[in-house]
Amino acid sequence: MRVWFAVLFLVLTLVSESVGGGRAQGAKSAIASVLQEQTNAWNRRDLEGFMAGYWKSPELTFFSGAHESRGWQAALDRYQKTYQGAGHEMGKLEFSNLRIEMLGPDSAFVRGEFHLTMSDGKTPHGLFTLIFRKFPEGWKIVHDHSAGE
Amino acid sequence: MRVWFAVLFLVLTLVSESVGGGRAQGAKSAIASVLQEQTNAWNRRDLEGFMAGYWKSPELTFFSGAHESRGWQAALDRYQKTYQGAGHEMGKLEFSNLRIEMLGPDSAFVRGEFHLTMSDGKTPHGLFTLIFRKFPEGWKIVHDHSAGE
Repeated sequence: MRVWFAVLFLVLTLVSESVGGGRAQGAKSAIASVLQEQTNAWNRRDLEGFMAGYWKSPELTFFSGAHESRGWQAALDRYQKTYQGAGHEMGKLEFSNLRIEMLGPDSAFVRGEFHLTMSDGKTPHGLFTLIFRKFPEGWKIVHDHSAGE
Repeated sequence: MRVWFAVLFLVLTLVSESVGGGRAQGAKSAIASVLQEQTNAWNRRDLEGFMAGYWKSPELTFFSGAHESRGWQAALDRYQKTYQGAGHEMGKLEFSNLRIEMLGPDSAFVRGEFHLTMSDGKTPHGLFTLIFRKFPEGWKIVHDHSAGE
């Protein structure tokens, strides 16, 4: 009798792990899609589309160098000023070396590199750490720490 | 009859939330202690003690500006070279504006500011994002993104 309980327990453990693993794979794909949609949006000069990857909240935070800023709307305003103001260009954005790591069923962090290619040949680039949370409307970045050269 | 099920459900929900909330508070205190022990260790010039807050793994990552480095031992070597080499000093370290946020029962991230005060009056400072995971041996930083001036 006891052996059957052991077998049942083993089967349930394997099923639960495989379901958990499948769920983690699904979450990682969903997060990868958010990042891909962000680069697509940036490269068609659609800053609102790019910002759709971020949590639309005043509590969203950005760390850049020694500077902290807060809030979705402020970030959009800053991106528009920096990349769409007179004499500015957005360049071509690429993310590379992405490492998506789950921290719970509804949270993850992403390590990666950003590369911009500007028309004058300059290539600003750097590293980022993103914290993602899953909301009813999907996976969103709640904190962005980016630093570059 | 149904009302008693509703009451039981409500009580169980409240108990589970209060247990969960208590556990989150305990985790936040434990993480705050790790950070406090790190500053204490730094300020007594104990770099191994400071490094005890980090995951002792080759997979530990540090992002600093546009530079990525990996591994606990490499980090200790770098800290020793940068802060204890000839003509170098460690200064007095303080963390401020710490915001510890749980991402799951065994994971959290911390936003904060670091300030160093050197004997010549210089005050290097900046922002950090830390990812913490809970291991059998306690809460450890698995990823550190720091940038400053």
